[in-house]
Amino acid sequence: MIRINDNYQKLAGAYLFSEISRRRSEFEKEHPDDHVISLGIGDVTKPLVPAVIDEMHRAVEDMGKAETFQGYGPYLGYDFLREKIVEHEYASLGISAEEVAVSDGAKSDTANFQDILGTDNVVAVADPVYPVYVDANVMAGRTGGIVYLPSTEENGFSPQTPSRSVDIIYLCSPNNPTGTALGRDDLTAWVEYAKANKAIILYDAAYAAFITEADVPRSIYEIEGAKEVAVEFKSFSKTAGFTGTRCAYTVVPKECMAYDRNGEAVSLHDLWSRRQSTKFNGLSYIIQRGAAAVYTPEGQDQIKETIGYYLENARIIREGLKALDITAYGGVNAPYIWLKCPGGMGSWAFFDKLLTEAHVVGTPGEGFGSCGKGYFRLTAFGSRENTELALSRISKLSF
Amino acid sequence: MIRINDNYQKLAGAYLFSEISRRRSEFEKEHPDDHVISLGIGDVTKPLVPAVIDEMHRAVEDMGKAETFQGYGPYLGYDFLREKIVEHEYASLGISAEEVAVSDGAKSDTANFQDILGTDNVVAVADPVYPVYVDANVMAGRTGGIVYLPSTEENGFSPQTPSRSVDIIYLCSPNNPTGTALGRDDLTAWVEYAKANKAIILYDAAYAAFITEADVPRSIYEIEGAKEVAVEFKSFSKTAGFTGTRCAYTVVPKECMAYDRNGEAVSLHDLWSRRQSTKFNGLSYIIQRGAAAVYTPEGQDQIKETIGYYLENARIIREGLKALDITAYGGVNAPYIWLKCPGGMGSWAFFDKLLTEAHVVGTPGEGFGSCGKGYFRLTAFGSRENTELALSRISKLSF
Repeated sequence: MIRINDNYQKLAGAYLFSEISRRRSEFEKEHPDDHVISLGIGDVTKPLVPAVIDEMHRAVEDMGKAETFQGYGPYLGYDFLREKIVEHEYASLGISAEEVAVSDGAKSDTANFQDILGTDNVVAVADPVYPVYVDANVMAGRTGGIVYLPSTEENGFSPQTPSRSVDIIYLCSPNNPTGTALGRDDLTAWVEYAKANKAIILYDAAYAAFITEADVPRSIYEIEGAKEVAVEFKSFSKTAGFTGTRCAYTVVPKECMAYDRNGEAVSLHDLWSRRQSTKFNGLSYIIQRGAAAVYTPEGQDQIKETIGYYLENARIIREGLKALDITAYGGVNAPYIWLKCPGGMGSWAFFDKLLTEAHVVGTPGEGFGSCGKGYFRLTAFGSRENTELALSRISKLSF
Repeated sequence: MIRINDNYQKLAGAYLFSEISRRRSEFEKEHPDDHVISLGIGDVTKPLVPAVIDEMHRAVEDMGKAETFQGYGPYLGYDFLREKIVEHEYASLGISAEEVAVSDGAKSDTANFQDILGTDNVVAVADPVYPVYVDANVMAGRTGGIVYLPSTEENGFSPQTPSRSVDIIYLCSPNNPTGTALGRDDLTAWVEYAKANKAIILYDAAYAAFITEADVPRSIYEIEGAKEVAVEFKSFSKTAGFTGTRCAYTVVPKECMAYDRNGEAVSLHDLWSRRQSTKFNGLSYIIQRGAAAVYTPEGQDQIKETIGYYLENARIIREGLKALDITAYGGVNAPYIWLKCPGGMGSWAFFDKLLTEAHVVGTPGEGFGSCGKGYFRLTAFGSRENTELALSRISKLSF
């Protein structure tokens, strides 16, 4: 008799966004004339930049001619893209193009990476957390061993190394949902912990392009020794507006090891290559060409302008909240603002107040974990007009 | 201590194509002036058709304008594509657009589908077999329970239902590597077996567009009752030359069930949706637009011309071999020809003879399983000129 993977029944319901959507729909039904602004979803709104568009047109042309047509590509990506990534993201960090594996998304990669790791490993995640890290591990049967590391106002939203030994550590910096970034000392402590405990760090740096402060690491490989214990995930989704275009990459340094049943070291780079060549067939040529255009001089100028636009939205939200005496974090090195609901209000109570009184939708922090209780996430990905309008409406509320 | 997934160490080496490549390189190094023709790899060579190219240009334009820009798309694909798939591939078969999940490849889907199934299930595959089915299950720990079903000249390359009970059955029709297709009676027997044994059939129909004979089913859902026990995988890779463009889809009917630990029926459709929404972020908008253009009247005419071109290559190979008294199968409903090495020659001996004497590369059948011993695969995806030249060279050999 065909049996399901019973671990799927241990997953928490995908409650958060469906509940947001339900409450919003209900309100809109009752108030059809009110214009609801969403600062809730982490999706970009600005179109792809001209350098990417032009290059994708050229790549589409390539696919229409026998001389330039591309069939199956390399499983881990074309060299033309992998080399550009290394040149621009890892210059002087000692990462080679072979260590970069191109894929369709950081979500896919952060979820799939646990495939190559044993089910007995103990997983640590921050609380609040991007839910995919947890769900992918629950699906694989690591249901007992998830350790939640509080990421709170008290520790500056920097999850601390635990006293017990864990094996897999997910770190997301700049962070979704808190909008804060880990500093050099924070990361150094984690790299040292990983070395001492023979653990690995799965470092999600999907928002690295939003870092503005000079002393915040853009890559975990800026930390001495990180190559032995860390895998890094980056994406073009937020960097260049590729959420609907799809391109990301994972860096698995050749010296990054895990251990087999006999305690022998095995290269995670080889295992990830084997996983991808078996279960993935490479990313579309057209999309990889478009991603490579991000690294042209025009591409770099153009994406910086877009990122600057979102960061200005973040500033408007941050300062708007400050003017209202609402405590808020993030928004300096990330497109997310993490605010403390005023007057000790709960996340969902604040959601309802914002929706019904200001017609603004955000994301209740407790949807990301218990440490998110009493917090609320706003995103900087809206249009300038909507962002300003949302803040102006919020400023008229009394808390 | 971080542990690897030890099942990866149980994988057979990816020996076949690297060994082919090694022998070819060695020959070319020693004979730099000889022009080696490959009829070995299952990759297309004709460019994308104009209808697809034009539509992808339009989609790239959409991504460059704020009014038409697309961010995150639906996890399971845009309705514009899912509806076209249902209309053209499943008209009158009672499949709804909701039951079609778009992805980046049939390889990804056939490999990932086992994710939602318990590790204790017993897997059956044909021998010879597309290696991904086996490898994906070995990676997941189903190492003990793989049942190989001989697919031989004696049974007309139609793997028979086993006397023992198995839970997951991979069927590929038209078949890679044998180039043969299962008939209505074959499939009916499998559907009945699956019902009687509460098994599910994972039906890989990636080559369905090559079927020319009227009585060969294009979909397993042509068989009464199949919706309760079968999942179907189809792809644009060979249908429309998307091997480097990437688009496929999986049909999971809502009535297709598996069972939890308490014996309760659980909808595989819901589990697959949950898997994809957690571990996948949807396929690029641009590519989905291109795939939808395959279903325009021009697109249909154009891809039929390309498929006709490959099928004519298949006829040339098939009849060329026949004229040499070499027994060969397939090539009527598939782009693959499966020949019996003449004179009782082994697969690799035949490979070496073809390479060194005719400068033609093919694929030794034993690379696909023990029942492939003494067989050899040629593909119809070369150019007409190369296909004819290869056959002319082979015709000069003496066996």
